[in-house]
Amino acid sequence: LPTPHQSIYAKRGMSLEDEINHSNQYYLSRHIAVIHKKPTPVQLVKVDYPKRSAAVIREAYFRRPSTTDYNGVYRGYYIDFDAKETRNKNSFPLKNFHPHQIQHMRECVAQGGICFAFIKFTELDLLYLLPASNLFKYWDQQQNGGRKSILRADIANEGYQIHYQLNPRLPYLNAVDKIIAAKA
Amino acid sequence: LPTPHQSIYAKRGMSLEDEINHSNQYYLSRHIAVIHKKPTPVQLVKVDYPKRSAAVIREAYFRRPSTTDYNGVYRGYYIDFDAKETRNKNSFPLKNFHPHQIQHMRECVAQGGICFAFIKFTELDLLYLLPASNLFKYWDQQQNGGRKSILRADIANEGYQIHYQLNPRLPYLNAVDKIIAAKA
Ligand SMILES: [Mg+2]
Ligand SMILES: [Mg+2]
Repeated sequence: LPTPHQSIYAKRGMSLEDEINHSNQYYLSRHIAVIHKKPTPVQLVKVDYPKRSAAVIREAYFRRPSTTDYNGVYRGYYIDFDAKETRNKNSFPLKNFHPHQIQHMRECVAQGGICFAFIKFTELDLLYLLPASNLFKYWDQQQNGGRKSILRADIANEGYQIHYQLNPRLPYLNAVDKIIAAKA
Repeated sequence: LPTPHQSIYAKRGMSLEDEINHSNQYYLSRHIAVIHKKPTPVQLVKVDYPKRSAAVIREAYFRRPSTTDYNGVYRGYYIDFDAKETRNKNSFPLKNFHPHQIQHMRECVAQGGICFAFIKFTELDLLYLLPASNLFKYWDQQQNGGRKSILRADIANEGYQIHYQLNPRLPYLNAVDKIIAAKA
């Protein structure tokens, strides 16, 4: 049996999105939650339709997503979040969010959805869920001339740390349970 | 003012997805619901990264979506559905659904989501929401040797008809309200 040392589970080189996708696959297979990453939107310019074979996209461009990375349903709640990595050690730069992502989360929260940022400090292998309401606070402060980043200490204080484990790799629904409980 | 004649609103040539997207845009702009079409997933094979300009996808293929077309949040509920058109007049062929779409809707319903099929009989300009529970019934009957399609009369009976109007073009959340009420 492997020693439960963090680096085994972190699998350096695996992106945060890969780790979340693996965890979501686990949750889905156990009928615990249905949460998927949305496909990256693509602007099609040229598509060939060869006879007797599949259509081939010959020219296309990546479009900026208008929403967040992930959504789905868990315990009757609509879940919506974005995964963000930073190599910074002491703070998370707010420029990692696009204004339309913040706006999207505001709309979802207004409809009763559970929204958060899934933040990884890659150099430290530290992971947190930061509830949208806290994210909005720092976003709005920035708009009013405040800091352009959120201190890691504040994220640790106001968010929920996720510790690597074997399966699911990132048991983040435990933290979502706490966000739901804090909301009720 | 335009006469409220169906063909004005139906805008022949506009696909059901376009009509739903317009309606979702209306609902979003009025802060009524946040429901988006998921991007079509694409399998990338070759991507060029030219200096000083955007990445260009040079070879890629359409992948079959593993879930449904639309999801989002409305009145605290997770909403998930697929839009399907048929040129048939008297029945809707079940082969329009992939087994993994049915499975996805079963998982979402088990988590408390509101799922349905948004069906359009294009030759008749008739539209219905059919709740997932009814869809599952016909799907399972087919698996057990039953009809390979759902009679339009049964859809009309068990589903909720959507009538074109000006804004939103397809006021389908009225029918979703009824699905929610029937569930409670
Ligand atoms: Mg992201
Ligand atoms: Mg469809």
